[in-house]
Amino acid sequence: MKSKFIVIEGLEGAGKTTARDTVVDELRQQGIEDIVFTREPGGTPLAEKLRDLVKQGVENEKLTDKAEVLMLYAARVQLVDNVIKPALARGAWVVGDRHDLSSQAYQGGGRGIDARLMQSLRDTVLGDFKPDLTLYLDLPPAIGLERARSRGALDRIEQESLAFFERTRARYLALAEQDDSIITVDASQTLPEVTASIRIALQAWFKDQEQHA
Amino acid sequence: MKSKFIVIEGLEGAGKTTARDTVVDELRQQGIEDIVFTREPGGTPLAEKLRDLVKQGVENEKLTDKAEVLMLYAARVQLVDNVIKPALARGAWVVGDRHDLSSQAYQGGGRGIDARLMQSLRDTVLGDFKPDLTLYLDLPPAIGLERARSRGALDRIEQESLAFFERTRARYLALAEQDDSIITVDASQTLPEVTASIRIALQAWFKDQEQHA
Repeated sequence: MKSKFIVIEGLEGAGKTTARDTVVDELRQQGIEDIVFTREPGGTPLAEKLRDLVKQGVENEKLTDKAEVLMLYAARVQLVDNVIKPALARGAWVVGDRHDLSSQAYQGGGRGIDARLMQSLRDTVLGDFKPDLTLYLDLPPAIGLERARSRGALDRIEQESLAFFERTRARYLALAEQDDSIITVDASQTLPEVTASIRIALQAWFKDQEQHA
Repeated sequence: MKSKFIVIEGLEGAGKTTARDTVVDELRQQGIEDIVFTREPGGTPLAEKLRDLVKQGVENEKLTDKAEVLMLYAARVQLVDNVIKPALARGAWVVGDRHDLSSQAYQGGGRGIDARLMQSLRDTVLGDFKPDLTLYLDLPPAIGLERARSRGALDRIEQESLAFFERTRARYLALAEQDDSIITVDASQTLPEVTASIRIALQAWFKDQEQHA
């Protein structure tokens, strides 16, 4: 099978790390060994510098919503051009912790960034490049934030209001609804149930890929 | 007179610093004392960090043209929202070493970035905000680069090919042609001649502003 780009998406505390382990385990069971992991924002030296600036901000300076989204796309184009596309080209599979859907949900939905700017950034930065499969782990923000909080101090974005995360979740759900390559997983289930849901979804997806290969 | 935003533009070695001193001297002669200086990219703590990343790059990682232009606009929105607009609002005049025209010329012209992305960045980041007056110091790139080289080591952008700077200059000239708020100054003249040209242009502009005030 041609190598693929699989992305795990969801709010803070949705269980993305556990989901990634499940995805990798399923890939290995399919005989796929060459797997590249990415996280966004980040994943290249420059993109990690931009990640730090976005996550921590700069002391005594308001980071504008527009600068935030521009820096996120700058980090993304570095990762896509320098890491993801070369990996796929040499036949590796790529498993990403977040990708463009996060910007659509957080900046487009949560922050309410101008839809024209979002569309234009996406079109010109990514063109027709998109993940082959996205697993969106859906859960009420209050639950996710409680889990994230229990892991330690929250960063600049994690400190946003519950209303911000409700808007972000609503945008995730709306976008997942419109796009067949996004599978929504109910992440408010117990951990074994979430893992089982991911395995079932992936196995069905693999079967479908084989039929269309 | 309402406070204004005056920008000095041109290739490396065009004489922007000397031109700025001339502009400031003319403003003082008009009785304007509250003057804020900006430089782009840069001018806020975050924008200066982005400037360093753009100017120096990151070791062993190719900085893509798209990431470059996104970072430049991220720096610009921070400067406009946090410095330039507040300064103008309190009645200060702002004199800028470079602004949006540099991105249009270097990234749009020199690098050949997609016109739709350039337009969309400009529209959504800046809206209808633009300088009241731009002095574009025009000269053949070979002369400017020779001057810049004599000042010391060249940064990542200054090391571009002569063809890159020829494209940049051509875009500067084309944009200046279309926009009445941009005055082109022949910077290949002797220094006293350039300074005299700037003074004459500014005095005419001031007279025009007073007539329309």
